[in-house]
Amino acid sequence: MSGELWRLTATEILSKIRAGECTVQEYARSLLQRIEARDDAVQAWAYIDPQSVIEQAEALDAIPPHERGSLHGVAIAVKDVIFTKDMPTQFNSAIYDNDAPQLDAGSVAILRKAGALIFGKTTTTEFAATTTGPKTRNPHDPNRTPGGSSSGSGAAVGDFQVPIALGTQTGGSTIRPGSYNSIYAFKPTWNAITREGQKIYSLILDTLGLYARSIEDLELLAEVFAIHDDTPPPRDFAIKGSEFAILKTMIWSKIGPGSAAAMEKAVSLLRAQDAEVEEIELPEHLNDLPAWHDIVLRSDGRPAFLPEYTIAKDRLSDELYGHVENREKISHEAQLEAFDKISAARPVVDEILSRYAAVLTPSVPDEAPLGIEKTGSAAFCLIWTALHVPVTNVPGFKGENGMPIGISLVAPRYHDRHLLAVSTKVGEVFEAEGGWKRALEPSSKL
Amino acid sequence: MSGELWRLTATEILSKIRAGECTVQEYARSLLQRIEARDDAVQAWAYIDPQSVIEQAEALDAIPPHERGSLHGVAIAVKDVIFTKDMPTQFNSAIYDNDAPQLDAGSVAILRKAGALIFGKTTTTEFAATTTGPKTRNPHDPNRTPGGSSSGSGAAVGDFQVPIALGTQTGGSTIRPGSYNSIYAFKPTWNAITREGQKIYSLILDTLGLYARSIEDLELLAEVFAIHDDTPPPRDFAIKGSEFAILKTMIWSKIGPGSAAAMEKAVSLLRAQDAEVEEIELPEHLNDLPAWHDIVLRSDGRPAFLPEYTIAKDRLSDELYGHVENREKISHEAQLEAFDKISAARPVVDEILSRYAAVLTPSVPDEAPLGIEKTGSAAFCLIWTALHVPVTNVPGFKGENGMPIGISLVAPRYHDRHLLAVSTKVGEVFEAEGGWKRALEPSSKL
Repeated sequence: MSGELWRLTATEILSKIRAGECTVQEYARSLLQRIEARDDAVQAWAYIDPQSVIEQAEALDAIPPHERGSLHGVAIAVKDVIFTKDMPTQFNSAIYDNDAPQLDAGSVAILRKAGALIFGKTTTTEFAATTTGPKTRNPHDPNRTPGGSSSGSGAAVGDFQVPIALGTQTGGSTIRPGSYNSIYAFKPTWNAITREGQKIYSLILDTLGLYARSIEDLELLAEVFAIHDDTPPPRDFAIKGSEFAILKTMIWSKIGPGSAAAMEKAVSLLRAQDAEVEEIELPEHLNDLPAWHDIVLRSDGRPAFLPEYTIAKDRLSDELYGHVENREKISHEAQLEAFDKISAARPVVDEILSRYAAVLTPSVPDEAPLGIEKTGSAAFCLIWTALHVPVTNVPGFKGENGMPIGISLVAPRYHDRHLLAVSTKVGEVFEAEGGWKRALEPSSKL
Repeated sequence: MSGELWRLTATEILSKIRAGECTVQEYARSLLQRIEARDDAVQAWAYIDPQSVIEQAEALDAIPPHERGSLHGVAIAVKDVIFTKDMPTQFNSAIYDNDAPQLDAGSVAILRKAGALIFGKTTTTEFAATTTGPKTRNPHDPNRTPGGSSSGSGAAVGDFQVPIALGTQTGGSTIRPGSYNSIYAFKPTWNAITREGQKIYSLILDTLGLYARSIEDLELLAEVFAIHDDTPPPRDFAIKGSEFAILKTMIWSKIGPGSAAAMEKAVSLLRAQDAEVEEIELPEHLNDLPAWHDIVLRSDGRPAFLPEYTIAKDRLSDELYGHVENREKISHEAQLEAFDKISAARPVVDEILSRYAAVLTPSVPDEAPLGIEKTGSAAFCLIWTALHVPVTNVPGFKGENGMPIGISLVAPRYHDRHLLAVSTKVGEVFEAEGGWKRALEPSSKL
């Protein structure tokens, strides 16, 4: 039976381990078997050492039950732009080949203390800052990208190689792979989780992101990271009678048929549950939000990659090289104007979002595109990253080629737990009736 | 003669090394002798290994002249909240005793590549986040604090143990020790220098800071860190005919006699140079800026210290423990209100500052207070940190007990080089006529 433990969510395996129905070692071996069977096809890992995983698992099994943490034994993958003291951190950059500075990022330290089994490092685009894909393939179609920059974390969770994973988002690096891999993705409010020990691209945009195959698992992680709203959300949020909005955004012209259909279906599914759904727009003066995001991003790349540029510019990709040299000739005046206008937009958008249980908006233009050279478009994610608001990707839909498509749910800043509560119920509907069926089905019947 | 090399500024020693008048090893030995003579009295260092300093110096001397960087051989001290790959980084926290993760912070990587001699780690308050002093004493009076949290960096530069040093500022941690130790301090525009590899307290406030005994040396560092204004400042700024302002700020009631007199004298010295100086105030709706800074700081302490709280809360100081537990019960609503109001204030204050060559404001309430238990008040620095604007401390004045006092010069965001150019000329006047004389005089006559 332990051969199928890899199918379980974090919450499910926790309960099994707590009940003494399996050991962390048995669980680890099951995941390692899954990875062995699938790694050639998916290639989600930048670094994984099975021997050290087993040793960690043994050490966790040796902890007396009353001293075990709230994530005792749960496997988690860590995007390879986040430091782990017992593994290399290489940023998909030749500059950091085999670099292993023996440091846990703040997030990893918290997870480790909670008893998580730090399984390995997952692939990323270079410094989580380009759209050039790593070796990783979409578990639902090896000819397609798993998205990026959190490519490996998205694919590993989507492929049942681990139940949960850490990603990051500066543009759409957490939400996009969420949609492409048909998993739940959660970009919390900016700075709700420490970014200590995570590569910097843009201080004001970078956010730690979380992946799971259930919202329950994301709730578990939110608890470990002490993410709390001012007022806890109601225990049982009901879709019936709730008000939602859909927001097509100022870049709706970039939408593809898959996401357009998913948005339409999402609305009809919610209405079928007796929710009210209205279509809204952001105020016209915020139409340049995507451009402001772009200006801030590029400007922040100047100081962020100056160390690598200084040390080894020949091993830095041309795109990042360009940021440091300010190839676009963005003035500080333009940079500050963009920075300040985004800042002014945040409370305005919070107020609009606060009128609804959640606002639905595309996660991606469409299904994961063909090819693994490029990680797809983050266009629909950018404004939410800039606005610092929490976003979930809720899976359940499919595109014209049978690939998964998710929808983003958005809430005001620091309404993270509220958003998760709403996403739970919405996810149940979308997963049941959205049209997407995993080739691989989770089994809760082990 | 090499016995007195420790007296030199960075610019002076660079020129001597370049001219072949001394080696990096001779220079390093001179500084080590100075440190040996003074360390009992000042105790600026959290970690220093003379043997490894000499080895670094030997390696630098072995570099062929045409391959040498722009800081070749210059000694720099690094505040012990910034990672250095060859030394421990301990944050003045028992949790990180002897911790040495073999990682260079972005700033250190840039300096090392430029040929700087990374001399050692200087003392800090716990995580640069409290006002409880480390062991360090003020070089001008061992019974007084050197300020904090960049205590060791400020004292080491003030005591001629190194010519330049890295500090950080979240409240007043760079500017305050600048004033107390009678040195030039420079807090650049927020995010103008990468904070990669520097302990996080508040993402939106933390800024890398620089120390030197001349503005020329700060210009040198600004160049290495690629800090450039949109328009380069005029080569020779003239005080004569320029317009300055003094700003007593909304907390003028906290001023002591020393800084009040220094502010008055600064105005009369500038007027004597035929500058125009007017007194200005910030708009009344910004009166709560210090309170907003406080709210943001405490709120940001929640995620920032959660890792340490999780790992070893018994070894975290009560103040930081309190942040994580949100002892002040600051709601996210209040946090966001403060965050957004500061954001809205930035362009408003930039516009006001842009009307003047520089705005003069107190660096500190008064001279360094007696005792080393507390690092003094950051009250006058807080708003400028929150506003992200560049600030210099310009020394030259003295208080009632004969201790040094500096004045802050402030400019709009990303007018860093302009501010340094103005500070050069203002510094010449203040140092010549402000009334403070170092017991220790630099010698440029070696």
